[in-house]
Amino acid sequence: MSSPLRLGIAGLGTVGAGVVKIISRKQELLAARAGRPIEVTAVSARSRDKDRGVDMSTYGWENDPVALARRDDVDVFVELMGGEDGPARNATEAALAAGKDVVTANKAMLAHHGQALAMAAEDAGRVIRFEAAVAGGIPVIKALTEGLAGNEITRVMGVMNGTCNYILTRMEAEGLGYNILFEEAGKLGYLEADPTLDVGGIDAAHKLALLASIAFGTKVDFDGVELEGIEQVTLEDIRHAADMGFRIKLLGVAQRSGRGLEQRMRPCLVPASSPLGQLEGGTNMVVIEGDQVGQVVLRGAGAGEGPTASAVLSDIMDIARGDRISTFGQPASGLVTPIRAQSAVAAPYYLRMELEDKPGALAKVATVLGDSGVSIDRMRQYGHESSSAPVLIVTHKAARNAVDAALEALPKTGVVLGTPVALRIEAV
Amino acid sequence: MSSPLRLGIAGLGTVGAGVVKIISRKQELLAARAGRPIEVTAVSARSRDKDRGVDMSTYGWENDPVALARRDDVDVFVELMGGEDGPARNATEAALAAGKDVVTANKAMLAHHGQALAMAAEDAGRVIRFEAAVAGGIPVIKALTEGLAGNEITRVMGVMNGTCNYILTRMEAEGLGYNILFEEAGKLGYLEADPTLDVGGIDAAHKLALLASIAFGTKVDFDGVELEGIEQVTLEDIRHAADMGFRIKLLGVAQRSGRGLEQRMRPCLVPASSPLGQLEGGTNMVVIEGDQVGQVVLRGAGAGEGPTASAVLSDIMDIARGDRISTFGQPASGLVTPIRAQSAVAAPYYLRMELEDKPGALAKVATVLGDSGVSIDRMRQYGHESSSAPVLIVTHKAARNAVDAALEALPKTGVVLGTPVALRIEAV
Repeated sequence: MSSPLRLGIAGLGTVGAGVVKIISRKQELLAARAGRPIEVTAVSARSRDKDRGVDMSTYGWENDPVALARRDDVDVFVELMGGEDGPARNATEAALAAGKDVVTANKAMLAHHGQALAMAAEDAGRVIRFEAAVAGGIPVIKALTEGLAGNEITRVMGVMNGTCNYILTRMEAEGLGYNILFEEAGKLGYLEADPTLDVGGIDAAHKLALLASIAFGTKVDFDGVELEGIEQVTLEDIRHAADMGFRIKLLGVAQRSGRGLEQRMRPCLVPASSPLGQLEGGTNMVVIEGDQVGQVVLRGAGAGEGPTASAVLSDIMDIARGDRISTFGQPASGLVTPIRAQSAVAAPYYLRMELEDKPGALAKVATVLGDSGVSIDRMRQYGHESSSAPVLIVTHKAARNAVDAALEALPKTGVVLGTPVALRIEAV
Repeated sequence: MSSPLRLGIAGLGTVGAGVVKIISRKQELLAARAGRPIEVTAVSARSRDKDRGVDMSTYGWENDPVALARRDDVDVFVELMGGEDGPARNATEAALAAGKDVVTANKAMLAHHGQALAMAAEDAGRVIRFEAAVAGGIPVIKALTEGLAGNEITRVMGVMNGTCNYILTRMEAEGLGYNILFEEAGKLGYLEADPTLDVGGIDAAHKLALLASIAFGTKVDFDGVELEGIEQVTLEDIRHAADMGFRIKLLGVAQRSGRGLEQRMRPCLVPASSPLGQLEGGTNMVVIEGDQVGQVVLRGAGAGEGPTASAVLSDIMDIARGDRISTFGQPASGLVTPIRAQSAVAAPYYLRMELEDKPGALAKVATVLGDSGVSIDRMRQYGHESSSAPVLIVTHKAARNAVDAALEALPKTGVVLGTPVALRIEAV
């Protein structure tokens, strides 16, 4: 058997402690599968004395993760601290410069600095692996980078923030409003310290940007993601969508549009009977579409100690076996800067508006939509006792800018109360 | 860029021709991802002149696949002929002996000779890859071998024969009997030349045996798979199952049972609302459960030119990148012979029997079940105009041998007409 693979693990939160536990308890199994022993040389965290449910005293200790990253007796630097800059980035750069491979779960760091780090890794002849950064335990980076490497990817999409999906499915199941469930999620510890990372869609958008880079051979372009969180999703829209056979999901979609790349992370409607529509609670799902393979759906736990540690271990095992794949599936120097094509791909839309009960009101709405280039597929007007009534419209395929033009024009008709709602219906 | 990876492809049916097409049409993309060009050196098939939709004249030709496997200008032998013995096995052995890596889609060959071939590969310092042998385009071998390598696998299951799932879902949707749909599947070209490979569950059992080997570190044990096809599944049972919230699937399950390994490929009931229950038509699904990751579900096309070629390409690309993983995820010399533990894991069962309309009939049935160690969870007796009535029983968890004992005893009560049906209800 070959020499051990020696790890330096920085960050001993839930995931870091989970990784140490697995390595210490399954030495034989991991060695058999990797062809060599996997060993923890040293660790680093903010507090040395905290009880983490596993004995850390047999490992070396570094207060400074950068010092850990540079240790001569470390082959792989495992970065589980998080944060897009600061210690995580400094230590990752130090590790690469010192000739270490890097395994990280840090989606924010890679979404912002992925290209620079991938270049640094290549210059140093090292690899960066990040299975745990996207969709927790689901081996989606591996599926996209390796398992579907013979495909031109046509679209990749996913529900990749468990907290958002938990809130949305509970809203529908319990009939509770967003604010109540947001508070509940906070109490249950489901929210990041900065909750807009979750409910604002930022965390999921980080993941989408990483998938898009691999899928389309482009530089990670987080700023190119069209971003909208779930804060504005109402119980009313969830119910109306359900009535029409849809569910509202915070769905990330990346696809080519002509020569451009469209990346969206927005609440949208999907058929309730589709795998994405049926996804309940905190579970994650990623759908990959390739020109050869058709549609592949991957589903599993998107967070938590075990699933995330499983993904980290997968990367460690690959490195132990000698796999040397490029960070984003091909040399970083060959990745191209994507041309942003926001909402260029047409889709049907769900529109909801409150209409005054006046003769000709519907006709005015229809005229505005037609003038904007949006045609109506089906419409529902609900019974009402007040002087206004909710109207739901499902459009034929329309460009987002046509829908935006209609949204701007509708209030000017004098028959639409408040702000109309428009949600994309994604064909899944 | 490194030297090209040179392929010899034996078998130019749908999949073989598909692989050649992708390689000839996507040279640039594949080279970027693999870090080196992928080239076809020579091919072999039964007929040289057949039109396969792609120009084969630029490649070398061998009438004998063994000669192809031994060519000095071939690095990887791609075996797409099929058949558990004969040319496929001879050429595979010749390729390994000549120091070539092997990529194959041949589940039958590996199910029967996987251990010997894996040993031969190791002795030669070569790899055998077979992503295309299981579940078509779904990268399930990769997920299990690499993506979840940090897990102890607790159970792996799957719907892995599209034809069977097509027949079963059509039976339910159209209310047509098995025989009609079997004939239809034949006319549509969905059946193997020997249809018992499909409807007898053999093809799916081949796949299950391969997954079990990887999951549990055991030698492939196809003969240890408890096997039952879908030929005996009736429309009546499909309807009764649906009434009670279940669907009948030809589901393969491999799991540890004490120190033994249980492998089953039998029709069984799964909740209609579960991902497996919702799987329609020819699509495949594999569910992997690990101690760390929980449940991961993979879904996609299980057959066809594009999906299967996609899987073959995935293996070729891995070899091009230098990945050298063992055939079944760890050295073949370390795989243990599994202790067969057939149907050792208890489960609830669905029982259907035709009961004579006599006083005390139900009591007799209940007594027999109780005496056999099978307790009743719920029961339905249907209205009837004849002198007998169908009775459905869902049992609490019971051992298969207890159920078998009850099945043997029931006809002796004198109140049960014909042969009772028993189908396992798998918790998914």
